Amino acid sequence: MIDTPALVDQHCHGVLRTELGLGTFEAQLARTEGPPAPGTTLFDTQTGFAVRRWCPPLLGLEPHCPPARYLARRRELGMIEAGRRLLRGSGITAYLVDTGLPDDLTGPTELGRAGDAEAHEIVRLEQLAEQVADTSGTVESFLANLAESVHGAAAHAVAFASVAGLRHGQALAPEPPGPGQVRGAAGRWLAGRRAGDELSDPVLLRHLLWIAVASGLPLQLHGLGAPGTRVDRTDPVPLTDFVRATAGLGTDLVLLHGYPYHRHAAHLAGVFPHVYADCGAAPVRTGARAATVLAEVLEVAPFGKILFSSGARGLPELHVVGAQLFREALGRVLGTWVAEGAWSPADARRVAGLIASGNAGRVYGLD
Amino acid sequence: MIDTPALVDQHCHGVLRTELGLGTFEAQLARTEGPPAPGTTLFDTQTGFAVRRWCPPLLGLEPHCPPARYLARRRELGMIEAGRRLLRGSGITAYLVDTGLPDDLTGPTELGRAGDAEAHEIVRLEQLAEQVADTSGTVESFLANLAESVHGAAAHAVAFASVAGLRHGQALAPEPPGPGQVRGAAGRWLAGRRAGDELSDPVLLRHLLWIAVASGLPLQLHGLGAPGTRVDRTDPVPLTDFVRATAGLGTDLVLLHGYPYHRHAAHLAGVFPHVYADCGAAPVRTGARAATVLAEVLEVAPFGKILFSSGARGLPELHVVGAQLFREALGRVLGTWVAEGAWSPADARRVAGLIASGNAGRVYGLD
Amino acid sequence: MIDTPALVDQHCHGVLRTELGLGTFEAQLARTEGPPAPGTTLFDTQTGFAVRRWCPPLLGLEPHCPPARYLARRRELGMIEAGRRLLRGSGITAYLVDTGLPDDLTGPTELGRAGDAEAHEIVRLEQLAEQVADTSGTVESFLANLAESVHGAAAHAVAFASVAGLRHGQALAPEPPGPGQVRGAAGRWLAGRRAGDELSDPVLLRHLLWIAVASGLPLQLHGLGAPGTRVDRTDPVPLTDFVRATAGLGTDLVLLHGYPYHRHAAHLAGVFPHVYADCGAAPVRTGARAATVLAEVLEVAPFGKILFSSGARGLPELHVVGAQLFREALGRVLGTWVAEGAWSPADARRVAGLIASGNAGRVYGLD
Repeated sequence: MIDTPALVDQHCHGVLRTELGLGTFEAQLARTEGPPAPGTTLFDTQTGFAVRRWCPPLLGLEPHCPPARYLARRRELGMIEAGRRLLRGSGITAYLVDTGLPDDLTGPTELGRAGDAEAHEIVRLEQLAEQVADTSGTVESFLANLAESVHGAAAHAVAFASVAGLRHGQALAPEPPGPGQVRGAAGRWLAGRRAGDELSDPVLLRHLLWIAVASGLPLQLHGLGAPGTRVDRTDPVPLTDFVRATAGLGTDLVLLHGYPYHRHAAHLAGVFPHVYADCGAAPVRTGARAATVLAEVLEVAPFGKILFSSGARGLPELHVVGAQLFREALGRVLGTWVAEGAWSPADARRVAGLIASGNAGRVYGLD
Repeated sequence: MIDTPALVDQHCHGVLRTELGLGTFEAQLARTEGPPAPGTTLFDTQTGFAVRRWCPPLLGLEPHCPPARYLARRRELGMIEAGRRLLRGSGITAYLVDTGLPDDLTGPTELGRAGDAEAHEIVRLEQLAEQVADTSGTVESFLANLAESVHGAAAHAVAFASVAGLRHGQALAPEPPGPGQVRGAAGRWLAGRRAGDELSDPVLLRHLLWIAVASGLPLQLHGLGAPGTRVDRTDPVPLTDFVRATAGLGTDLVLLHGYPYHRHAAHLAGVFPHVYADCGAAPVRTGARAATVLAEVLEVAPFGKILFSSGARGLPELHVVGAQLFREALGRVLGTWVAEGAWSPADARRVAGLIASGNAGRVYGLD
Repeated sequence: MIDTPALVDQHCHGVLRTELGLGTFEAQLARTEGPPAPGTTLFDTQTGFAVRRWCPPLLGLEPHCPPARYLARRRELGMIEAGRRLLRGSGITAYLVDTGLPDDLTGPTELGRAGDAEAHEIVRLEQLAEQVADTSGTVESFLANLAESVHGAAAHAVAFASVAGLRHGQALAPEPPGPGQVRGAAGRWLAGRRAGDELSDPVLLRHLLWIAVASGLPLQLHGLGAPGTRVDRTDPVPLTDFVRATAGLGTDLVLLHGYPYHRHAAHLAGVFPHVYADCGAAPVRTGARAATVLAEVLEVAPFGKILFSSGARGLPELHVVGAQLFREALGRVLGTWVAEGAWSPADARRVAGLIASGNAGRVYGLD
């Protein structure tokens, strides 16, 4: 048996602080552009079925019980107690929490306490820049404050995360922009900006990426298809030139959530020493197919370059299914290879430990 | 056991009306640019093997009998009787028939009668426009007749189908063209056109799509790699902007035959409420691999957004293998997930019914 | 049981002539841009695990023994004797050897002798052109010598190979360049060139491809992601227009190593009579996943259009794992389809023979 008792969730978010009804819970099960089509429900998805499989037993119910019954029990226990039982049932022993979402979600400390686990912060670069812009009067002070903020964040965070690839995709030039370019772009952006506006200027996005690269902290590059973007923005291949430009500088790049381009992410992790492939988020989305999707990542990514995450946000149920689906999928995939004689049992156990927690411990300097 | 006794084939064509020899039958097994390479035969494909597995028993022969023996028996029964036996053995209870191919194929009524099934028409937009052009004298009458024809077709058809994506791919702008643009394009096209010419002007293709969207009838977007095009034209991702532009208008879009981009089609069906993913055609092409390809569609497409079709054209054998491969694949995939505990048996049966016929019934307003 | 006793390796390279230590051996296990990341090793890859599974028994050790022990035994036997034992244990009966790598590798004759097998040469077009450039004084003599060299090579080689697609990808126009264009490009390239420089001018690359097409010899198009390129350069879809332009001329095109675009290569082999899909190299890279990747090629490629290769270079271990993984994968995939009733046993054995050696024999005119 291949087991992974301790999991480091190398990329997730916090959970909502409010009690949820059937509709508000359902809306967290997928990122969609609009409500479910008439006659359909997001519970009828791999994610919905996985939640119904794994979570009811943690709250004392039968697996696969109807959503309404599950939510009634969840409200009966209260959001806080339900969250504690779920997170503590996930097997996750450390959370790396991306705090860069606008929603009111629990932070690392609160998530760690609820889950009785370690917790660390991942700082979202674009959000940091937007906050700095909100409080800086001039271009010079904005740029100085930005550099200081990134370096300050590097002192307490375990990683940076960026959505620059999603916001600009192929248009993102690989080199750091020159100082004049950066000042010009900052001037234009600050002049036209209202508080709360998103950063989407490509020169400033590149500038931010390069400040982060200089910090030496691992840099997570988001690939999750967000509403309003195209799924091919999640393909990491167009980032190849940026990846090549950052090679040998001592900073690791982590490609997040590449599905359906996860084989491409695995390829890049195989070619570039400083690139790592996340195998998370896809299991939560693909449920009963998690083992196959995980196996596809294991095709060409070196086993020392693959990292587990849940990619969960909003619902502790998603941390649970991210962890349980991964654990079961990894056990099944590696167990099959051992049974077929392709891998030795000792190698399989060792690789399981690397992907579940060992690689993350090494990359993020956890103890 | 997961069974699907009744299938709605949501996209297929009619069958040929002539007796076929070995060569003419073989030529219908795949869409190729030229005859088989020397020393090879299209019977040596997944489609050919699937036909040899499923069809001979319906005509009283052993599975996997040699092609020549099968065709001799087919001719012995006669094309009409063989077609009746095949179609009635398929388990398809309703055919939605795209009548927009130039070949002399049976129409919906004739196909339904042969198969003892319901039948409905899907109107191909480009063919409609070409017919209108053949009979319209001026730009103004062409445009008026076009609008009238589309609205007239909407009264009796269950859906429209379009090959605009294939003919123009990424170049297709998402917005409806302005009236002046449309008149200009129509004038140029009509002036240069000879009877029978295909419509490939991008402005007119977009105009057609938007008239169809306004009708409220579901719109099927072809993705099947046709000879003369490139397979990346079948990738639905470049249609994302058009898809987003049509959201919320009350018209459903159905992405046909996305292989090898079926995971992309499934993703779009997950993100956009009005988008549906066809899981047909791929089984006929991939034969013994149908279960895996179907499972890939089931990864991220909500289960209420997946539609069965055979995609068959020309040979009733293709309706049979489309249906049988789908039925067996779905039973195997869902049955495995039930056996693994990932899905409950009740959910599996319910989802099987949705994909086999329930979703199509809802989307196309069948009873 | 589906067995493939004799394999024709339709694309490989020779092996290194030097004794290897742990580090130099490891460096041959993958094409990377830089040394393994700290704390990781290329032995922890599917390729590394496959080598440890299949090769130690051929040298009298246990499967999965530690790399250091394996290398000690390899040095004890000596590179020559170890190579003989490995190659003769591979089951490969004919090697088609691409001699166009700069490394000091054994040639076809030496490889065939070591492996007790037939061996034939594949001539790399770009290397041929670079050699001609090194010895030609003028544009006119360069172009004349080039044509002569290609035709001379066609007399003794079994195929040409080209990396033009990798070097230029989508930018490669499909038509043959005109004589003036070719002279101009040759003049500029020769003038700016230093001995040893690579040919990367797109006009000359196209000119070379068309001289090769005119020779009638099969033309292998490289798709393997080389360091310094992007993996999407390995997608054969952008070559579609070139493929269409060369249809009907009597020259076969062989698409090499398409992973992760192997389904695209299979599609092209299905559409174009003169296109063949290599199913090699991917097994060596994907190890325990070889059966799935092979099954993906078998989805839409006609069975008479699929060719085995190891894609091996540098280490005889890679010829061994290429052959063993293929043999086991093919047996498992086809055996499963027979067990499921999808294929007849006789068809499965026949198709196994075609892919293992029959198709290659026909395409390359081997006896």
